[in-house]
Amino acid sequence: MRIACWQATCAPGGVPAFLESLRAVARRAAAGGAGLLVTPEMSVGGYPLSAAALAEAREPVAGPHGEAIAAIARETGVAIVHGWPEAAGAVVHNAAAVTSPEGRLLTYRKGHLFGSQERALFAPGSDGVVQTRLGGLTVGLLICYDVEFPEAVRAHALAGTELLVVPTALMRPWDFVARVVVPARAFENGLFIAYTNWTGARAGLDFAGLTRVAGPDGGLVTVGGDGEELLFADIDPARVVAARASTTYLQDRRPELYGPAP
Amino acid sequence: MRIACWQATCAPGGVPAFLESLRAVARRAAAGGAGLLVTPEMSVGGYPLSAAALAEAREPVAGPHGEAIAAIARETGVAIVHGWPEAAGAVVHNAAAVTSPEGRLLTYRKGHLFGSQERALFAPGSDGVVQTRLGGLTVGLLICYDVEFPEAVRAHALAGTELLVVPTALMRPWDFVARVVVPARAFENGLFIAYTNWTGARAGLDFAGLTRVAGPDGGLVTVGGDGEELLFADIDPARVVAARASTTYLQDRRPELYGPAP
Repeated sequence: MRIACWQATCAPGGVPAFLESLRAVARRAAAGGAGLLVTPEMSVGGYPLSAAALAEAREPVAGPHGEAIAAIARETGVAIVHGWPEAAGAVVHNAAAVTSPEGRLLTYRKGHLFGSQERALFAPGSDGVVQTRLGGLTVGLLICYDVEFPEAVRAHALAGTELLVVPTALMRPWDFVARVVVPARAFENGLFIAYTNWTGARAGLDFAGLTRVAGPDGGLVTVGGDGEELLFADIDPARVVAARASTTYLQDRRPELYGPAP
Repeated sequence: MRIACWQATCAPGGVPAFLESLRAVARRAAAGGAGLLVTPEMSVGGYPLSAAALAEAREPVAGPHGEAIAAIARETGVAIVHGWPEAAGAVVHNAAAVTSPEGRLLTYRKGHLFGSQERALFAPGSDGVVQTRLGGLTVGLLICYDVEFPEAVRAHALAGTELLVVPTALMRPWDFVARVVVPARAFENGLFIAYTNWTGARAGLDFAGLTRVAGPDGGLVTVGGDGEELLFADIDPARVVAARASTTYLQDRRPELYGPAP
């Protein structure tokens, strides 16, 4: 399957402007042959999420923005990963969903919240590994800080994830995460990671760009620079099979040596 | 504490020649102010270990080669990490030890054996995390392939290791491990890793060099090239404290989300 990663700038104009941009980008993704379009963390509302943006963007899983995104998926034939503040009773989660032309395939609530601002705004999720099938691949979903925990990605690999989709909001000076940690995660688990970031400045944060698809064998399939970009990558599950045959980490693990997880 | 990493070529001459080279290198390490000298995997005997080298180098923990190394440590005032084929009853382990001028501090048996050759020659160890105190630091020991498992290094971090010493025998085309995986391990756990490799060709293997000390904050303290080198690095435990305060991975883990280790 070909995928497209939208390294976006957080533009003014609120949700209507975002949906308009998303429609245009999804058409470009479709024209480029992509079956999946990934957007950055909290793409509906923006990152960081202001009080006004939270009020505008928050909705439950089956909300009007999600329906508008489902309509774009149907119209373009491209599955879309978007992020939004999910209203769940009294709390809000930092959530993401995979929505195909056939409907919603997957939702996920960020399990590892980053820093005091996120912890003030969101309740942590407890989903662990979530997966769906798309384009002949087992696709999993984590959000930003989640992927920095080797345990979280290992759990995906052991559960059979071949393509791990990671919407993110990585700011400088944490370039190391995109440049080093994400490729290491892909290699040590023998899977693809589509790490899709914001670019540009917003609310005092300087987003790092550096969107990339890291391959299961240590290779980079595509790498973004500093500006707004739509990056394409071909995800071939045969590379997962070959990498796991070559670097047999999953079968060579010795859990009895690692002690109890405290 | 200042440490020295000996990126060595596997020279002919057997154990006597190795011990002579080690004495000269330990003097240089002492002259450079090092309190610890790290040598590559299986430094007594060489890597890969031929049948003749195995016969010459194998000995129990308290053997004559180990005693000769303890004498060099006393003579130079430098603690030494060496590797050797440890005879343990009917089996042989791929082992390493830390020997200070005061005596043996630590031994470790490689837990993750690499490939069919190692599995034919060695019994896997079951030590898990081993640690000692040296130069004001909590020092741990893993060997080569062990460090590629995020679980093994995480167990060290959770147990308080500040400097993880890793004798290795990394051959091309696996440069990615030295360049990307080792720095990622140091960063994601907030500890120093002294990854000390062979250089040059031997028995059809092309050793990658690339010895490095990776810092707890993503920085590289020292990096080797392709040839024989003695690399010095200053290990400041304050950098561990600062890194773990800045990237709070150890406290932000959520083990309940990672599932049972199969």
